[in-house]
Amino acid sequence: MLGARSDPVIRHPVVVVTALVFDVQGTATDFHSTVRRAAETIAGSRGRGQDWSAFVNDWRRAYFEETSRTVGQGPWVSVATVYRRTLDPLLQARGIDLATAEREELARAWARLDPWPDTVAGLRRLRGKFTLATLSNADVSAVVSISRHGDLPWHAIFAAEMVGAFKPDPRTYGLAARYLGLEPAEIMMVASHKYDIRAAKQLGFATAFVARPLEYGDPALGDAEFSDEFDINAVDFLDLADQLGC
Amino acid sequence: MLGARSDPVIRHPVVVVTALVFDVQGTATDFHSTVRRAAETIAGSRGRGQDWSAFVNDWRRAYFEETSRTVGQGPWVSVATVYRRTLDPLLQARGIDLATAEREELARAWARLDPWPDTVAGLRRLRGKFTLATLSNADVSAVVSISRHGDLPWHAIFAAEMVGAFKPDPRTYGLAARYLGLEPAEIMMVASHKYDIRAAKQLGFATAFVARPLEYGDPALGDAEFSDEFDINAVDFLDLADQLGC
Repeated sequence: MLGARSDPVIRHPVVVVTALVFDVQGTATDFHSTVRRAAETIAGSRGRGQDWSAFVNDWRRAYFEETSRTVGQGPWVSVATVYRRTLDPLLQARGIDLATAEREELARAWARLDPWPDTVAGLRRLRGKFTLATLSNADVSAVVSISRHGDLPWHAIFAAEMVGAFKPDPRTYGLAARYLGLEPAEIMMVASHKYDIRAAKQLGFATAFVARPLEYGDPALGDAEFSDEFDINAVDFLDLADQLGC
Repeated sequence: MLGARSDPVIRHPVVVVTALVFDVQGTATDFHSTVRRAAETIAGSRGRGQDWSAFVNDWRRAYFEETSRTVGQGPWVSVATVYRRTLDPLLQARGIDLATAEREELARAWARLDPWPDTVAGLRRLRGKFTLATLSNADVSAVVSISRHGDLPWHAIFAAEMVGAFKPDPRTYGLAARYLGLEPAEIMMVASHKYDIRAAKQLGFATAFVARPLEYGDPALGDAEFSDEFDINAVDFLDLADQLGC
C-alpha cells in the first residue's frame, strides 16, 4: 500500500494536505505502560500477584464502553470523570484496596501519558511542513497536560470536549476542519485505531494508519495490520515523516 | 507597582498561578507594522501619498466596533469576515482602487501578523514554568496561522470563536479556565489592553499588563501607562519572564 502513489501528500491534482490531526491516547502516547507503571507504584505490596496489564486493558475497555454509550446522549461528561468512576469497580473486583487519594492519583495518570519513543522526533520533523493538531476524546485539560508532560509540539489542541461529542461522531472531525479553516481533503487524520480514521475518511479526510502493536501491552490484543484503504500506513511517526517527505 | 509583593506569582498563600493566557492581536503581535507593510506592498504606486498608518488604525477601529456590536447578538461572525467587509468602505473613502484578489490578500494579512521582537524569546522562557495559551478574539484558524507564521510556542490555542462570544464577554475567560481545568486565580491573563485584563480580573484571574506603546504606530494613540490595579506591569515579554522568575 505504500508504493501506490509517488507523493502520498497529493490526494488529487489540486488538493494538497496541509494539516495533520492526531489521535492522542494510544497513537501519540503509550497509555498502557504509563498507567501500568503508575498502578504498580501506587499499589506497591498491595498489588503483588496482580496482572496489571490486564487491569489497564479492562480500565481502558470500561472507558471506551462508557464514552461510546454517551455519544449524543445527555450532558457532556469529562473523560477524567469517566476514568475515575470506572476505577472503583475494577479495584473491587480484584480485591485491591487503595485510599481515595491514591485512586485519584492513579486516575490522573491518564493526564500524564508518556509519548511513544518516536513521537516527539516525528512531530518535530512533520511540524515544519504541516500544521499539527490533536483531535482527542480526552478532555482539553488532559491533552494540554499530556502535551506539556511529553513536550509534544502541536500547533493546536482540539478535543471532543470542544464540540460535546466523542469520536467517531462526525461533529468531532468537522470541528477540526472548521477550526483549521480547511476542507476535509486538506487534512490527514492520523490514528492507530481504524474506527477513527475510517470515520474521518467517510467525511473526505485523508488518512494515515500508524501501527501501535504494543498499545495493549500484548501484540495479540491490538490490530496493527496495514490496510490498503488508508492513504498511508506507517510503523511509527518517523516512518510517517519519511513518507510525507519531511 | 512592581515592588508590592516579593513573589508576584503567588496571589494568595495557597493559590499559585500555573498558566498564562495571552491576547494575540496587539499584545503578542505587531498588527500595525504587519498590515501597514502589506497595504503598502499591495497598493504599490496606487497608494502614493496615503497615510497607511491611519488607514490601519481606522481598519482596526472598524473591526473593534463591529465585534463589540455583535457581542451576544445573533450568529457567530468570523473575524476574517469582519476584516474583509470593513475593508471596502475604507478603501473607497480614500479613493484606493484594489482588485478583489488584492483586497482578499490584504485582509489575510491579519492571519500572518509578525510577533513583537521580544515575543518568541519571552514565551520560550515562560514555557518551562507555565502552561501558555492564547485567548484571542481572532478566529481559531487565524490564531493557528499567526502562531505558525511567528513560531509562537503556545501549549494550546483558545479563541472567542470556541464559545461564540468576543472578549470582554465573561464566557471567553470562563472557557480558558474550563479548558485548562484550573480556577481563575490559578491563571494570569496577559494583555496590552486594559479592558481585557480588567474583565479577567473581575472574574478572579491574576493580571499582567504588557505595555505596547507602538501598537497603533504612534505612542500618543495607545495607552501604555502602568497601573497599580494589575498584579504585574511589564515593558515586554522578557520583562514579564523576569518578573515571573523565568
